[in-house]
Amino acid sequence: MKLDALETFMDVAFEEARRAAAVGEVPVGAVVIDAHQGTVIARAHNLVRTNADPTAHAEILALREAAQEYRRPRLVNCDLFVTLEPCIMCAQAIALARIRRLVFAAYDPKAGGVEHGARVFEQPNCNHRPEVIGGVRETAASDLLKAFFENIR
Amino acid sequence: MKLDALETFMDVAFEEARRAAAVGEVPVGAVVIDAHQGTVIARAHNLVRTNADPTAHAEILALREAAQEYRRPRLVNCDLFVTLEPCIMCAQAIALARIRRLVFAAYDPKAGGVEHGARVFEQPNCNHRPEVIGGVRETAASDLLKAFFENIR
Repeated sequence: MKLDALETFMDVAFEEARRAAAVGEVPVGAVVIDAHQGTVIARAHNLVRTNADPTAHAEILALREAAQEYRRPRLVNCDLFVTLEPCIMCAQAIALARIRRLVFAAYDPKAGGVEHGARVFEQPNCNHRPEVIGGVRETAASDLLKAFFENIR
Repeated sequence: MKLDALETFMDVAFEEARRAAAVGEVPVGAVVIDAHQGTVIARAHNLVRTNADPTAHAEILALREAAQEYRRPRLVNCDLFVTLEPCIMCAQAIALARIRRLVFAAYDPKAGGVEHGARVFEQPNCNHRPEVIGGVRETAASDLLKAFFENIR
């Protein structure tokens, strides 16, 4: 996939992130695409407070919606785009769903579980390792998060 | 909490695990209790295939149901009982939900994320560390899982 295609799908994830911010949620957005068709299958944003659900991160909601769409729990040949490095929970959900490729924007040194902390896909017992591309539109994602946290302080 | 109280709540988790086996799902059951009231708030079993949802582990479903019950994403003063050591995804969901105490039955050297693999609660950047009690009714849980996997082979 060329960089401009990556950025096009990441733009959809950004639209979702801005929807999260608009309802007072931490601005993270995620998109699942069918890598063969090149089409968006599911899109979601963080809704932890709105849904009163500790698991309602953008990635989990997008994975669940995509699995509903295909009526199967494994999303082979699907890629996930997300505006922030996934946490440990979401990284393992990505592995369980057999996502082919993970593309994320901002790195998260504090709570990230892909390039930081537990580095879920590097664990010896990891059941599935997606291809990982980090840093696509990194600055824009960091700016969105910074603006959100400055606003609520 | 005394051992017999632990075992009483674990019995409820076992009932759920048997319900999972009855519908052809890997037999894992989970229960969330209000530790102050000593009452069951939510109970669930693994439904990954049935729900076509890669995240539908017993723990995730029980946490989501309990959060709905309280109408808030953080389950302070709640304990989670589960028949198998949680995987990485579920362990981090437990941390995100601020569960007070985790009690599990069988250890899972292959896919466990609490006492094995990523050891989520021991990560330096872990946001919340529940008290952990492992091995309550361990043999019964192992037997249930073994019988299930022998049956499907």
